[in-house]
Amino acid sequence: MSKLTDVPKRILIGRALRSDKLGETLLSKRIALPVFASDPLSSVAYAPGEVLLVLSVAGLSAYHFSPWIALAVVVLMFTVVASYRQNVHAYPSGGGDYEVANTNLGPKAGLTVASALLVDYVLTVAVSISSGIENLGSAIPFVVEHKVACAVAVIVLLTLMNLRGVKESGTLFAIPTYVFVTGVFLMIAWGAYRGIVLGDTMKAPTADFEIKPEHQGLAGFALVFLLLRAFSSGCAALTGVEAISNGVPAFRKPKSKNAATTLALMGGLAVTMFCGIIFLAMATDVRMAEKPAQDLIRDGVPVGPDYVQDPVISQVAAAVFGDGTFLFVVLAAATALVLFLAANTAYNGFPLLGSILAQDRYLPRQLHTRGDRLAFSNGIVLLAGAAALLVWLYGADSTRLIQLYIVGVFVSFTLSQIGMVRHWNRHLKDEQDPAKRRHMIRSRAINAFGAFFTGLVLVVVLATKFTHGAWVALLGMVIFYGTMTAIRRHYDSVAAEIAAAEERPDEYVRPSRVRSIVLVSRLHKPTLRALAYAKLMHANELEALTVNVDPADTKALKEEWERRGINVPLKILDSPYREVTRPVIEYVKSLRRESPRDAVSVYIPEYVVGHWYEHLLHNQSALRLKGRLLFTPGVMVTSVPYQLRSSEAARKRARKRQEWNAPGAVRRGPVEKGHKEPAGRNTP
Amino acid sequence: MSKLTDVPKRILIGRALRSDKLGETLLSKRIALPVFASDPLSSVAYAPGEVLLVLSVAGLSAYHFSPWIALAVVVLMFTVVASYRQNVHAYPSGGGDYEVANTNLGPKAGLTVASALLVDYVLTVAVSISSGIENLGSAIPFVVEHKVACAVAVIVLLTLMNLRGVKESGTLFAIPTYVFVTGVFLMIAWGAYRGIVLGDTMKAPTADFEIKPEHQGLAGFALVFLLLRAFSSGCAALTGVEAISNGVPAFRKPKSKNAATTLALMGGLAVTMFCGIIFLAMATDVRMAEKPAQDLIRDGVPVGPDYVQDPVISQVAAAVFGDGTFLFVVLAAATALVLFLAANTAYNGFPLLGSILAQDRYLPRQLHTRGDRLAFSNGIVLLAGAAALLVWLYGADSTRLIQLYIVGVFVSFTLSQIGMVRHWNRHLKDEQDPAKRRHMIRSRAINAFGAFFTGLVLVVVLATKFTHGAWVALLGMVIFYGTMTAIRRHYDSVAAEIAAAEERPDEYVRPSRVRSIVLVSRLHKPTLRALAYAKLMHANELEALTVNVDPADTKALKEEWERRGINVPLKILDSPYREVTRPVIEYVKSLRRESPRDAVSVYIPEYVVGHWYEHLLHNQSALRLKGRLLFTPGVMVTSVPYQLRSSEAARKRARKRQEWNAPGAVRRGPVEKGHKEPAGRNTP
Repeated sequence: MSKLTDVPKRILIGRALRSDKLGETLLSKRIALPVFASDPLSSVAYAPGEVLLVLSVAGLSAYHFSPWIALAVVVLMFTVVASYRQNVHAYPSGGGDYEVANTNLGPKAGLTVASALLVDYVLTVAVSISSGIENLGSAIPFVVEHKVACAVAVIVLLTLMNLRGVKESGTLFAIPTYVFVTGVFLMIAWGAYRGIVLGDTMKAPTADFEIKPEHQGLAGFALVFLLLRAFSSGCAALTGVEAISNGVPAFRKPKSKNAATTLALMGGLAVTMFCGIIFLAMATDVRMAEKPAQDLIRDGVPVGPDYVQDPVISQVAAAVFGDGTFLFVVLAAATALVLFLAANTAYNGFPLLGSILAQDRYLPRQLHTRGDRLAFSNGIVLLAGAAALLVWLYGADSTRLIQLYIVGVFVSFTLSQIGMVRHWNRHLKDEQDPAKRRHMIRSRAINAFGAFFTGLVLVVVLATKFTHGAWVALLGMVIFYGTMTAIRRHYDSVAAEIAAAEERPDEYVRPSRVRSIVLVSRLHKPTLRALAYAKLMHANELEALTVNVDPADTKALKEEWERRGINVPLKILDSPYREVTRPVIEYVKSLRRESPRDAVSVYIPEYVVGHWYEHLLHNQSALRLKGRLLFTPGVMVTSVPYQLRSSEAARKRARKRQEWNAPGAVRRGPVEKGHKEPAGRNTP
Repeated sequence: MSKLTDVPKRILIGRALRSDKLGETLLSKRIALPVFASDPLSSVAYAPGEVLLVLSVAGLSAYHFSPWIALAVVVLMFTVVASYRQNVHAYPSGGGDYEVANTNLGPKAGLTVASALLVDYVLTVAVSISSGIENLGSAIPFVVEHKVACAVAVIVLLTLMNLRGVKESGTLFAIPTYVFVTGVFLMIAWGAYRGIVLGDTMKAPTADFEIKPEHQGLAGFALVFLLLRAFSSGCAALTGVEAISNGVPAFRKPKSKNAATTLALMGGLAVTMFCGIIFLAMATDVRMAEKPAQDLIRDGVPVGPDYVQDPVISQVAAAVFGDGTFLFVVLAAATALVLFLAANTAYNGFPLLGSILAQDRYLPRQLHTRGDRLAFSNGIVLLAGAAALLVWLYGADSTRLIQLYIVGVFVSFTLSQIGMVRHWNRHLKDEQDPAKRRHMIRSRAINAFGAFFTGLVLVVVLATKFTHGAWVALLGMVIFYGTMTAIRRHYDSVAAEIAAAEERPDEYVRPSRVRSIVLVSRLHKPTLRALAYAKLMHANELEALTVNVDPADTKALKEEWERRGINVPLKILDSPYREVTRPVIEYVKSLRRESPRDAVSVYIPEYVVGHWYEHLLHNQSALRLKGRLLFTPGVMVTSVPYQLRSSEAARKRARKRQEWNAPGAVRRGPVEKGHKEPAGRNTP
């Protein structure tokens, strides 16, 4: 079937995979790590900076607390990774936080987690792209001068890519992620070597600046509060850790074990990079301030509003590699790219979560169907629109956007871990094997500690960030929660309305006879086909119906009808105002009034055309009539299509559309084959 | 059926007319005059000014030519009115220029006229509203300071009114038109009385200005050309004369005679007002210039770009009644209102012409149906969009817009009159009665002179205005012509494709057997109804089909199927990627491959809901499946609707929509009852 025109495409993106084959592309750990970890790893590009930024409020002396805060983040990271390793083993189907909370804590907790995650996906896009732009800007000043426009352009680009359905490949993720990780480790190693072995003095571009503290000599409660706020900001490094727990089915076997190993690997890499950057920042005297324009002092004068505060990672790279060197530029580019990839993961995650929520009827049913392009498109456009709005409102300032972040993450961390504790409790009741019980008790202890710790962090984050912007995220969660509850309520009420009664199920809706009507406007092949099909159906009565819109046309039709000797009676309805719909509807209603127990079957000949503009030229009145007939009880409406030659074009488009791959397919893995029904079996 | 909530509406717009009654509201001459004449009469508000404006190019002395130009316009007006009186008698069905040209000169001439008229409708809106704003601005300066915004606002207002379907009433037209006509005549009479009897010196606000001629001492060919250009502009007074010839069926009997009388009345009124205003303008020394900012001199200095040149009618009114007096304001308001009404006539005429063109398959068929709200809406939005674009491009400057105008009018005048000559020639061949022959020869002479004169004017208009903007109008005509030709070609090719062969008409499309498939997702009332209806139809084979999207759901369905003992086999299709459409399509195709002579009938249970947001929650996959199935040959698709309680809301909306009245109904008159088929008759 391949044509010559397809050749360049084949060369570019490889042979088109048949969708049955998709299931066989499982991820090795080597590829799974970059696929899932671009989000958490990329956050080391901004999280260390945020810590210094908050500490600067109390002046330069407060920077000494940063190793302690880094330590707290490391401990938290280990806790979360350890906890999620339990999730991965307990829910190998890739349940994720929503399923864990839903199953163990009930639908309200589940819906809360889902709302939190949806908000978080939006923020992942906004924060990652803003931060990526800032990192790119440290190498290309133009970008940072047109921050909002560039950020929105990247959002638009990612959106178009995802709407078109880019074929995801592990390699696409692997290269920039590994370049980034290697770059950061190289930087840490080279920095350590220069500092410790060579004894060089490395100076960040801002090393000679002074910081004017917002609050001089902070102490006691205020200092603790500030430290907690710095810690909250550092927790941005933990976002995205839960992604692996959604993606277990995408791993090669043994799935759970491989996923757990990847999780541990990712945690290890993230904390090492996080700590390394913090320590290099201390060693090279990076200076960052929350309000750089007024609080950063160069030669005794504030730097003013034109000063652009580069991210900590690029300042460190400038100190270690030298500003503008090859390695500096490569690292800046890789950082930006990994951050954009992290944003892309949200483009995958958002519709995937939507599909799970649709299954539970919290979102429109059609989102459930995987690979349903239309459904994905709506989700993607919604995500992109919300993220672009935030980027625009917050001027693509990652520091201000991060204030909104993390709330959602820790809501879902906490509820998921509480759910896991319940999970183990339930299983412990039935389990007798002492070895397994021991194992479960150990898991429960880990999850309980995780729940306690992440819950504590959630309280800290809410307390320290609520007025700084976390309320916006909470508002977003409330909106999602409300909408999804309303949708579920609608589905439930419809389900109750249409539920079939138990006894004598189909008796009371069964009409006794059926009367068929074929709508005729002119005598051509589509009409003749509709007549032929209607005759096949052996209705109790059959007649053709035409509306007298134009007397001359009607007369000609009647004459041809007789001349051809068509053995179906032709009924002519009057329409003094050249309407089609109303006379037909009224005629059908009158038939129903005459014999209420008869069903009426209306056959409508339809042209099938290939181009949107042809739709404007055909079928409009048939479509409107069909729409109105559906409101008339006791009527069924049959379209008898007649495929015009041009419909071939549409058929080809549809075939092409089938080859489209939904974004996120690689991360999600194939559908479980385990509990599948044998295909094509008849049940008597 | 009337409800309490309807009471205020009833009081406001009167009892809702049943549409059968609409036919009985025929127009008396007293009402017909304002209904049809607001367009031509309103043009006296700007046409005299345009004449002076063009003459000013040669300096103040050229103003002395204005009576001669007025005379030429009067002669032309009498010619055109006399010619159209022949049309009205020859085509009492309200053919209009399109029908006359189409019937007598062939489809290409007809289509040219139609394109010209369509462009003219757009320009009527643009010119009338711009001029209306300028007249209003002479009383309310704010309006003229925000000319474009106000003009677009009026367009939007008219569009919304026409989209909602305002009930047209003769009175709505009559009051402002008669106030305007009375006001102008009062002004002429009072001006004559003051000037001749009292001997007052009346001075227009611009009387003391001097005019700097663009071309000093123009003579010979250049002067003739300028005079012809002034005449062309004056011809704007003739636009809209043809409207009555479209609207003959709306008149009371004797239709043709009444229409001809109204036409004469209108012509008389228009020329009297036109000449009266020109003479008053001369008497009160009105000064107008094409480029007022530089060419109008006040106290030796150009007035500059801030100067607003008021329309001639308001300058004359200021001189006769006094600036800002009650009568001055009333006349300004009535002038603006009549101009807006003139624009409104285009809102009626555009879709009406569209409906006639649709009948001849130059435009989408559905435009043909009268009172089809959707079709009207498209036409109205297209008209309004084009007019708003022109208003915006030309800064709502009526003088610049008038350069585009008139070309279309005279194209249709000329072709229509040539067509009439052919019409009489054809009838003269068969006519023997000498009295009738004499009458016909007289009519032919009038039409021939009309054709010659309007053709001459067309050449003059084209020659003098082409570079001034007439090329834009011609471009518009070419675009309309091209589009309509393409549409017609498409319809013709489809008609050829689907034309039924003469011998053994329905044999070759007739399948031998039919196989019915009921799509099932869950077992609820809609599914049971679809099953019951499908059973009624006695297909050769019947089976239920479900797609295994979720194994648990499928298992539950199968169990319930067996428990209820439904005696239809249930086939389960596998769908590893949770698609619904593809497996069904492929299954249907496989059935067709197995037995190509069988037809497949697919029953789809559908929910009928009442609100747009509910559509988002239901039926999406069914709709898409239906769309795809129609592309598969040999398949018919039956929707078995299940009306949810909420569908009642939609039914109510539909009922309300039926009461909508298409704009233009009053002008068009009822559909001819003459050649109507008796209702509800069966042809064996």
